[in-house]
Amino acid sequence: MAMKHTIVPAIMSGGAGTRLWPVSTEAKPKQFHVIGGVGTLFAETAARVSGEAGALSFAAPLVLCNVSHTPWVEAQLAEIGVSAGAIVLEPAPRNTAAIAAVAASLAAERDPEALVLLLPADHIIADRAAFLATIERAAPFAREHIVTFGIQPNRPETGYGYIKSGHELGAGVHAIAAFREKPNRETAELYLAEGGYSWNSGMFLFAPALMLQEFAASPAIRDGALAALKGARREGALVHLEAASFTAIPSVPLDIAVMEKTARGAVAACDIGWADLGAWDEIWRIAAKDAAGNACEGAVVVLDSANNLLRGDGVRVCVAGVNDLIVIATPEAVIVAPRMRAQEVKRLRELALGGK
Amino acid sequence: MAMKHTIVPAIMSGGAGTRLWPVSTEAKPKQFHVIGGVGTLFAETAARVSGEAGALSFAAPLVLCNVSHTPWVEAQLAEIGVSAGAIVLEPAPRNTAAIAAVAASLAAERDPEALVLLLPADHIIADRAAFLATIERAAPFAREHIVTFGIQPNRPETGYGYIKSGHELGAGVHAIAAFREKPNRETAELYLAEGGYSWNSGMFLFAPALMLQEFAASPAIRDGALAALKGARREGALVHLEAASFTAIPSVPLDIAVMEKTARGAVAACDIGWADLGAWDEIWRIAAKDAAGNACEGAVVVLDSANNLLRGDGVRVCVAGVNDLIVIATPEAVIVAPRMRAQEVKRLRELALGGK
Repeated sequence: MAMKHTIVPAIMSGGAGTRLWPVSTEAKPKQFHVIGGVGTLFAETAARVSGEAGALSFAAPLVLCNVSHTPWVEAQLAEIGVSAGAIVLEPAPRNTAAIAAVAASLAAERDPEALVLLLPADHIIADRAAFLATIERAAPFAREHIVTFGIQPNRPETGYGYIKSGHELGAGVHAIAAFREKPNRETAELYLAEGGYSWNSGMFLFAPALMLQEFAASPAIRDGALAALKGARREGALVHLEAASFTAIPSVPLDIAVMEKTARGAVAACDIGWADLGAWDEIWRIAAKDAAGNACEGAVVVLDSANNLLRGDGVRVCVAGVNDLIVIATPEAVIVAPRMRAQEVKRLRELALGGK
Repeated sequence: MAMKHTIVPAIMSGGAGTRLWPVSTEAKPKQFHVIGGVGTLFAETAARVSGEAGALSFAAPLVLCNVSHTPWVEAQLAEIGVSAGAIVLEPAPRNTAAIAAVAASLAAERDPEALVLLLPADHIIADRAAFLATIERAAPFAREHIVTFGIQPNRPETGYGYIKSGHELGAGVHAIAAFREKPNRETAELYLAEGGYSWNSGMFLFAPALMLQEFAASPAIRDGALAALKGARREGALVHLEAASFTAIPSVPLDIAVMEKTARGAVAACDIGWADLGAWDEIWRIAAKDAAGNACEGAVVVLDSANNLLRGDGVRVCVAGVNDLIVIATPEAVIVAPRMRAQEVKRLRELALGGK
């Protein structure tokens, strides 16, 4: 029988999701909405890594978020019957490196033998079984390596970073040869032709002690995180990080602070129906569609239209004779743009909210 | 000095404006909204024919509407400082012939010497001075003729009926040779090439006794209208028409009930910046536009888009990279369609409201 692994999920739930405005707002960012799934992105993320599964035993999750979103976190966890191990409140967004250090330290404090599974709260993973199998396969390597999850690319996507695999450590797990920034189309096609590249999903599995050790490359971040945790005010499950220490931490992604510098990086290959719902066009791509290619959510009336993403949240969306558009309506605002220009929603939001 | 004419405006305000949904609703139809003007269509209609102007003296207007719209009528008249001569409440819509008979009878009851100016409440008339000059020119003929207002066509419009002029009665006023239904494009082009045709604006100027006499062609309508008025319950300015008589009246337009049958029809040529705002594309045509051809009303954010009609009533409309669309948003619904398909809004409304 395989070794049992205790996994502490650490769910990073501090994102703003500005490109999914107007559904995603400052008050209720995208991870707390139903987008392309049955439950909210946050609830599905938490449910996916709960309970027992094969050799995996998931501990109560750590959730890292903004204080103003605590009610969403508590309500949505309650709905799926999950109790938070801790809800860690970030005094200000300080990117993923600071969060990884806090999560590692907090997890080690509870159970130094457990592994930490650091997850964004806003990803779609359609194939939970494959995801759990990948975690199980990666776990034995996660004491000596910080394991990332490399998604098998199926198109020359320019919206994600890529990981180049190095030598094999075990079945489906390789050392990381290099990280590649989001490529242009030509380069992305080269990666696919060459093989050995996967999409960087931004998920990590690691032993907390190893992570803290590898922060040797960026000690200011680790030390700031540990100070913020040491000075934190604890109140039930809530952990109010100490503001002065935390806000002084350089805002750097974990990839840059640690992963690109460590010799202990590994990548577990996976094919798990993964999507990072950055913008509305990606949601259209993964959504269920009618015969004409329209993906509809909420109150929608469609006449003679094709290949649109249509969403009415509390406002009825009615279209006639339009193709390849996104139309997203809430009581606050409506956006209309070609699917190909979904990235511009961020700019529309800035213009609408006056640069906020 | 020219003879003075007392004119009683009779404002037909019972329309539903379903093609201007979702701004125009059952509870507040288009005439009570600001559309393509400064005031509401109804208020601008009433203000346009008030006070003294040259040889014209406008009496307090008669307003004919649905009982549920009385508050809009009262509030919007109060805002422009006009007192209604009467607010006539239609138990059910019965088209313009019935209204003309009621208006003629009610006006004669007050001042048999006055002329009645029967006006839809939802027209745009950009050149008030030219409109008043046309009324003044038409008034001397309105005791012996029912004078219609024929709009000088500037394009082969297929959305309006046409009037063919006959012999001249006086400067710019002709007998009516024939009414023509909305033509197809080819026929409309023929009318323009031939000359002597004008658009039928649906406005009428007449002596009440003459109108009631010419109803000899459709006596059931006149008799029903007179009975509904005789049996009406009066309450201040409100005239509640007697329901049984009124609802029994055949629902026929004045053009068919009287104008196509009478030998007393006349047409006064005019060029007054007139538009009948039937659908959103017509509103785009008459509206003020930005350099890219976008007509915007309300809360609107525009990025790299051209020739759109954009309207946000209490909901912000944000568009990027779209052309030739109508996007109309209210807290109830949003419609998105190409301008060329503005007529389909009526169908969208039916689908959205379940055929109501």
